[in-house]
Amino acid sequence: MKYPSNNIIYGNRGMTLEYLINSSNDYYRMIDKAIVYKKPTPITVARVNFPSRYEAKIEEAYYKTPSTTDYNGIYKGKYIDFEAKETQSKTSFPLSNIHKHQIKHIEDIIRHGGIGFILVYFKLINKIYYLKGEDLINFISNTDRKSIPLSYFEEKGFILKERINPYIDYLKIVDELYFKENKNG
Amino acid sequence: MKYPSNNIIYGNRGMTLEYLINSSNDYYRMIDKAIVYKKPTPITVARVNFPSRYEAKIEEAYYKTPSTTDYNGIYKGKYIDFEAKETQSKTSFPLSNIHKHQIKHIEDIIRHGGIGFILVYFKLINKIYYLKGEDLINFISNTDRKSIPLSYFEEKGFILKERINPYIDYLKIVDELYFKENKNG
Repeated sequence: MKYPSNNIIYGNRGMTLEYLINSSNDYYRMIDKAIVYKKPTPITVARVNFPSRYEAKIEEAYYKTPSTTDYNGIYKGKYIDFEAKETQSKTSFPLSNIHKHQIKHIEDIIRHGGIGFILVYFKLINKIYYLKGEDLINFISNTDRKSIPLSYFEEKGFILKERINPYIDYLKIVDELYFKENKNG
Repeated sequence: MKYPSNNIIYGNRGMTLEYLINSSNDYYRMIDKAIVYKKPTPITVARVNFPSRYEAKIEEAYYKTPSTTDYNGIYKGKYIDFEAKETQSKTSFPLSNIHKHQIKHIEDIIRHGGIGFILVYFKLINKIYYLKGEDLINFISNTDRKSIPLSYFEEKGFILKERINPYIDYLKIVDELYFKENKNG
């Protein structure tokens, strides 16, 4: 499997956020904890050549703007849906990184009873945050700012520490937010 | 938006099953009944050319075998997931039309509490059937047959009549199967 070539050093292992999430999803599926996949990248095919009856070679195609988020699936019977983004900024997450219809999609999902969120990787400070879709939408609705400051992630978000199996245990945050049992002490 | 070129006459309007489903999903979203999308076709990109900094032209790519089903989303808070297939056969649905890991995926979804099914369009007799994922899996587990006879769809499945808005009201079947209220008389 090939991942984008702009590999990022993460915990000295040179991994992109996409790789970390895909591996985590593979692990979740392996232990049958959740069924979550990355959707294929949307591509418009313009020209296909058929060297033989059973072979198709695409010779001209273009990347399309995605209409939804990259990841979705099912966890503990609930629909979950999220987008993952990396940023080079040390101080804020530029909203130009996330398409308007992706934000609308997260809104749609939450309104229909699903769990929606974004994972943002601040590469230069080596931190990955989980931000609830509700908090993303609140921020956007209440400001004209073109980026979400890091302090908003520190205040509202949840940090995801890199670990082994899975690399990024984002379902732990989902558990805390949506499936928390009553605890004594 | 471009759809496969082997267009099928359906109700004299020349529509493919994919087109009918995509339009139905657009309609469901428009009236905010459900959020369901077709996943992009998985493509492996082998070579990309960059005519300019912001343009990417894919010059060599290949279709990949999908690891999941084509459609998923959320309806009444539940995760739903399905595959849609057309067949030229008048008497049975060849199982070679559906990949093993797609069947496993439907099994996974059901085990995790989601709703999984297939829609099969028998083009030559102009009938579309909804078959529960459970019935698909039961059939496969209990036989070595390489195709599902039409009679199994007649017995276990639900026929979907073409209509307007949406063209194929598959959520009506989902309602009957999973959200049926107690009715008197």
